[in-house]
Amino acid sequence: MNFLNEVTHRYPDAVSFAPGRPYDGFFDTEDVFTYLRRYLDHLSAQGAGPEQIRSAIFQYGPTAGQIRELVADSLRKDEGIDVSPASVVVTVGCQEAMFLAVRALISGPEDVLLASSPCYVGITGAARLLDVEVGAVEEGEKGFDCAALEAAIVAERARGRRPRAFYVIPDHSNPSGTTMTLPARLELLDLAERHDILILEDSPYRMVSPGEQLPTLKSLDRERRVVHLGSYSKTLFPGTRVGFVVADQPVVDDAGNTGLLADELARIKSMLTVNTSPVSQAVTAGMLLSVDGRTSELNTRTAAYYGDAMRVTLRELERRFPEDERGPLGISWNEPAGGFFLAVNVPFRADNAALERSAEEFGVIWTPMSYFYPQGGGESSLRLSVSYLSHEEIVDGVDRLARFVRAQTQ
Amino acid sequence: MNFLNEVTHRYPDAVSFAPGRPYDGFFDTEDVFTYLRRYLDHLSAQGAGPEQIRSAIFQYGPTAGQIRELVADSLRKDEGIDVSPASVVVTVGCQEAMFLAVRALISGPEDVLLASSPCYVGITGAARLLDVEVGAVEEGEKGFDCAALEAAIVAERARGRRPRAFYVIPDHSNPSGTTMTLPARLELLDLAERHDILILEDSPYRMVSPGEQLPTLKSLDRERRVVHLGSYSKTLFPGTRVGFVVADQPVVDDAGNTGLLADELARIKSMLTVNTSPVSQAVTAGMLLSVDGRTSELNTRTAAYYGDAMRVTLRELERRFPEDERGPLGISWNEPAGGFFLAVNVPFRADNAALERSAEEFGVIWTPMSYFYPQGGGESSLRLSVSYLSHEEIVDGVDRLARFVRAQTQ
Repeated sequence: MNFLNEVTHRYPDAVSFAPGRPYDGFFDTEDVFTYLRRYLDHLSAQGAGPEQIRSAIFQYGPTAGQIRELVADSLRKDEGIDVSPASVVVTVGCQEAMFLAVRALISGPEDVLLASSPCYVGITGAARLLDVEVGAVEEGEKGFDCAALEAAIVAERARGRRPRAFYVIPDHSNPSGTTMTLPARLELLDLAERHDILILEDSPYRMVSPGEQLPTLKSLDRERRVVHLGSYSKTLFPGTRVGFVVADQPVVDDAGNTGLLADELARIKSMLTVNTSPVSQAVTAGMLLSVDGRTSELNTRTAAYYGDAMRVTLRELERRFPEDERGPLGISWNEPAGGFFLAVNVPFRADNAALERSAEEFGVIWTPMSYFYPQGGGESSLRLSVSYLSHEEIVDGVDRLARFVRAQTQ
Repeated sequence: MNFLNEVTHRYPDAVSFAPGRPYDGFFDTEDVFTYLRRYLDHLSAQGAGPEQIRSAIFQYGPTAGQIRELVADSLRKDEGIDVSPASVVVTVGCQEAMFLAVRALISGPEDVLLASSPCYVGITGAARLLDVEVGAVEEGEKGFDCAALEAAIVAERARGRRPRAFYVIPDHSNPSGTTMTLPARLELLDLAERHDILILEDSPYRMVSPGEQLPTLKSLDRERRVVHLGSYSKTLFPGTRVGFVVADQPVVDDAGNTGLLADELARIKSMLTVNTSPVSQAVTAGMLLSVDGRTSELNTRTAAYYGDAMRVTLRELERRFPEDERGPLGISWNEPAGGFFLAVNVPFRADNAALERSAEEFGVIWTPMSYFYPQGGGESSLRLSVSYLSHEEIVDGVDRLARFVRAQTQ
């Protein structure tokens, strides 16, 4: 990623399909004031006096978060995830949630974290901080492969290790753009129960994707096998830096008391960031309150916007690489129905050298897919992100990409 | 700490000398709006257009923080710490800064983190998350003991281990209330240079203490031996959850490039929280701008307030334990000139059982000092925090404490 940042810095005029940043064109800075006021009014309407409201903003606040009820309410309305507020921990973005989960679940050298591969760098980063190795479970053509996961579990057990959790982005995955089918979701839940592992479900792109979405793993979870990692970076805005984790699994602590995994995650958080900024939580809460918890309502426009960007990208790829040329050229791509990313397979090594040539000679930047493979792979594939570019930039960018690909294959 | 929380919960009517929370009586909730606006106006005055301002609030922002210049400016004006903004990383409170420092500096099993003992639970907590043991360097009667640190360094080296860093709160320490003298500060810096270790300086209570303060270790640091851990929780307010770390030490990364330790800390932060909330940073920045970086100006009243609370506490202790009775009773305490805490030595085990009896029968809560000893100690000592109580509560609380102590010694 350092190299990518460096290339981006050196070629500022290149069209960049690299950053997975949300589009901020629909955001109004003044709304931050409105949302903050909205939350203060909410506290007041709930009976809090001026001193209590002052404390809610001024003081540290509870480690697990002071807007857990609103998060739980929103999950019920948006996602059909029906959990108690006590199972929610508000975090400093989803990244902290990942760290807390890995720290809690992988506690000994025999514990194994598995992840669908290619996989989001956030989870491998969190694991790296804790010197935890991530076992890669390769995606198939259609994304998550249940048989591959089961084989990995069996293989780890045979080595005397204990698979504890499996990380996956079921919807419009980062980086590959794949979505898990409903049968695959049910199969995964069944597998988790049979093999006694937890699933770490990360799903930041659902509400910002057009059309109906499949149910989350957590909403289908009858056996408390799913730890749901939540992000508001795409559905509200990244600058709040508020995420959350739902962890309703019962656990017994050192003193023999039964609590929830959420309690254990909060204990870890108390040693990491103490709590999530009450100011940020207040803005987040105000934004949730403004739509009565339905973040889907906030994202009608953004979902359409990203959907259009994906369609334009796919259309331009089809235009620049007519169907009869794709086979001979050795190029192919998938067609995600939502999210920010798609994967393009190319007939050459899509490595740093290729990236540099692409940026320097053709003015187009992308992310080598190999960056996302914890244990190697993806050498002839690249990730395109469509979230931050205008249609004009996409048209221009795909044109440049096509010229680069053709030059590489000559 | 869990037991303490439980006792606090069970005896809500007890006077509690336990929490080290800042007093919020001088804070006005509406100021949050003013500070936020102030920062947006500042960006505008600096030439940022509406879209740039929107991005500064909406997007993720740089991992090392977007208000580094303002933090560095404030450090120069408030503390005589003259460092480049590039050596600053803005963090989610000082707690994250501690975690980053421990993660960066203690990288192998032979690396050792030492800490002045008794010691703040934040640093031992951060170390525990990383399975790092904290080597305790006992304070003497007057606080930090340079000879004890040197002996610890030599002993660790003799065991084949590599002492990397020493954590200390030089001013009005939490928990003991002790302050390092100027000669001790110079001696510590010299020792750090001779033994090639870094000092982790944590000093959140300076600006909220009355009168002139001794210079920070960082302002005396000529050899870049000091990593300065910064908190705004007391000087601004805890709800921003913004802290920082100053790490201007040159380091060579894996690729052979020379950078600053701050760069390495930012890399770690990218895997932990990605960045500190731009909304929180904006409020923090607006508050700094409102006093042109001089947080001391914001804290004239709070410093006087805490100073009064400490004086009332000491006065009441003197009144309840007349001088001629102290020796026979076996009670003594120190007399910090500032900060939130003082240490009381008692002639019995100040453990959880004693705490429970104190809360139940006498209606007064304190913190067993043994909680703060990483490797045992402090069994007959307790910590009183004076930051959050009114004078009436202090008078009442010390009365209750005196009755408890006398009952324990009968």
